[in-house]
Amino acid sequence: MTAELISVGAEILMGNIVNTNAAYLSRKCAGLGLSLYYETVVGDNEERLLEVIKTAWQRAEVVILSGGLGPTEDDLTKETAAKALGRSLYLDEHSRQRILDRFKDRESNTITENNWKQAMVPRDSIVVDNNNGTAPGIIMEEEEKCIILLPGPPGELIPMFENDIYPYLRDKQPEVLCSAMVKICGRGESSVETDILDLINGQTNPTIAPYAKEGEVHLRVTAKADSEEEAEALIRPIVDELFNRFGKLIYTTKEKKTLESVTLDILKERGLKLTTVESCTGGLLGARLVDVPGASAVFTHGFITYSNEAKQQLVDVPAEILQQYGAVSPQTAQAMAEGAIKATGAEVALSVTGVAGPDGGSEEKPVGLVYVGCCVNGNTHVREYRFKGNRTKIRNCSVVNALIFLRELLLDVSN
Amino acid sequence: MTAELISVGAEILMGNIVNTNAAYLSRKCAGLGLSLYYETVVGDNEERLLEVIKTAWQRAEVVILSGGLGPTEDDLTKETAAKALGRSLYLDEHSRQRILDRFKDRESNTITENNWKQAMVPRDSIVVDNNNGTAPGIIMEEEEKCIILLPGPPGELIPMFENDIYPYLRDKQPEVLCSAMVKICGRGESSVETDILDLINGQTNPTIAPYAKEGEVHLRVTAKADSEEEAEALIRPIVDELFNRFGKLIYTTKEKKTLESVTLDILKERGLKLTTVESCTGGLLGARLVDVPGASAVFTHGFITYSNEAKQQLVDVPAEILQQYGAVSPQTAQAMAEGAIKATGAEVALSVTGVAGPDGGSEEKPVGLVYVGCCVNGNTHVREYRFKGNRTKIRNCSVVNALIFLRELLLDVSN
Repeated sequence: MTAELISVGAEILMGNIVNTNAAYLSRKCAGLGLSLYYETVVGDNEERLLEVIKTAWQRAEVVILSGGLGPTEDDLTKETAAKALGRSLYLDEHSRQRILDRFKDRESNTITENNWKQAMVPRDSIVVDNNNGTAPGIIMEEEEKCIILLPGPPGELIPMFENDIYPYLRDKQPEVLCSAMVKICGRGESSVETDILDLINGQTNPTIAPYAKEGEVHLRVTAKADSEEEAEALIRPIVDELFNRFGKLIYTTKEKKTLESVTLDILKERGLKLTTVESCTGGLLGARLVDVPGASAVFTHGFITYSNEAKQQLVDVPAEILQQYGAVSPQTAQAMAEGAIKATGAEVALSVTGVAGPDGGSEEKPVGLVYVGCCVNGNTHVREYRFKGNRTKIRNCSVVNALIFLRELLLDVSN
Repeated sequence: MTAELISVGAEILMGNIVNTNAAYLSRKCAGLGLSLYYETVVGDNEERLLEVIKTAWQRAEVVILSGGLGPTEDDLTKETAAKALGRSLYLDEHSRQRILDRFKDRESNTITENNWKQAMVPRDSIVVDNNNGTAPGIIMEEEEKCIILLPGPPGELIPMFENDIYPYLRDKQPEVLCSAMVKICGRGESSVETDILDLINGQTNPTIAPYAKEGEVHLRVTAKADSEEEAEALIRPIVDELFNRFGKLIYTTKEKKTLESVTLDILKERGLKLTTVESCTGGLLGARLVDVPGASAVFTHGFITYSNEAKQQLVDVPAEILQQYGAVSPQTAQAMAEGAIKATGAEVALSVTGVAGPDGGSEEKPVGLVYVGCCVNGNTHVREYRFKGNRTKIRNCSVVNALIFLRELLLDVSN
């Protein structure tokens, strides 16, 4: 089956936002075995949008549109897609009620007349509830083909796709497609790819698709077969071979597990409590841990110490250490971690101190120099990093590498 | 003038990379006053690529292609674009020499036969030197129109565009384009738009384009004119009118300012120090403040208190308050903020406590219930929110609304 993506919105054409939705949907289509030959971005203009939808409808079996489902006059996607298939709109009572419910609890926002526009749906379509916004998704089927309309904000589009659209499309595919996600941390993309070039080039079923994230490489191993069991049987030897090559650098093969969730799992199993002390990351490490539901079983206390004074006051870093070695030093990272243990009674502490830039760098301590301290059951280790990139990138790298460092110490992963 | 972008490459269609080139080129085109109505992504397939180029050539005056200029057989962009305009290719001696020079200094790479493919250029075209790679850029002119070919890697595309293509296109454009960014917080998109429908519909120069973010609405006001001064003069009355309508809800008109940066600016001006105490947001508020370079002038101390014990231990929330009212209550939010003031000596404190879900909700205290406490110079205010959505959305909404709340109290903004 072939699919085609249409992203609707002036903010993409103006370059105000990067089209991450298209990248997400492309990856998902690839995972479903849908062939994607074209992606189009078009603005909120009825004539042009209609032309684009009609062209896609001729070329593809599944046309996925995102954006333009908002309540304003600009938002034309639903109206135009319905027009392309010659369908009229009606007020969907279920969607109207959901919008009403969403607004009920909000004090500051009152429903305006244009909000009801979002409850209008094309005749004979499947309405997909939006749990994170007021615009429902829409599926319009015609014989074996379909047009799918998704809301533009990624916080609405992604959960809707995962929960409803992915299963819907999977059921339309005659072949079964299964995949495993092998997640590797602590190695760069090109280095991982070089090590598995023979596997990537050697076969077409299963396929191996690498996808790089900050500090991580995810390998999606995907097999097509007539049954789930057959597909699994094709995938298993490849995953085993990847374990042979990368060992403990593979932190999970589960789609939904993250570096932070597996690290918290290890700590929980061992009954260890974790505390954090953050300087240049300013709470980002804590926020990432708390991203994991149930994190409170392990992580409950954290400190943001964004000045020398805060480091002394909150986690008792000795003034002499700050004076002698500076805030960005292995000695300070160690004192932060150990001070946090004393202040909270946790068994494990992670500390981060560094120069995130753009200012504050020197020849001796350049922008990107970061120390992570990790204290596990009384033993403190400190690692030095030299990251490249802007402030955001340096802070994200710091957080990921702090987690990798902690996991390594817990599992005694050799470097 | 109208422009159109075509991105060529299977890696975009597979979702392996995010199409940041398109976002970059869109922004540049907007800055040049070029109207961009369509962007297309297509793979390395001659038939489909030719179709896409021909369609764009009918619709736009400037067609910009990126990617597919590499040395491999897969790379077809130059050959196909030349074919679309009926031009043949020849070996460009200047480009051949540059490729030779580039390889001279490399130790590990030897020139292979296919490298000379990159020195082939279409007849009667302008060759644009590539200082960061081996694929030259190409401009093919036909009467008033042109097709521009750029290499795909951003490290080659961006410098080439900045140095050569931008000046080339600017010289072709008679008009200047200027814009102002009016950023509004604490109002929903549909509510803002209802209030400015007359302005949006009333004119085409300047145009007003709304763009919604979590808790914010940004309005881009863009004018075309013969000079920068004339464009500015067209924009000014619109911005003044927006201030009439939204007053202090407008927190900036500067592109680069954010809600957190203007809030920190106010605190800095008044010599006030800020501290944070976060439960359900787990450090996200702190991390967002530290996103602003120079935040340490105002924000240096923060606490993550993700359990009752942590709330008592780190910021002295009385056990009785937690027992009587629970961790998610206005009383606890107030005690957290006041405790943080005592523990750090700051003049201003922001506290966040709530149920981020997916578990932990009850009928009385459902998922999405969040209290923000804000203490300014000894007076503590608490506000209750009921957010909808998943864990990430609830936490992001909590952070944005905490910042909006603080700014309101500082500026005494009426609701």
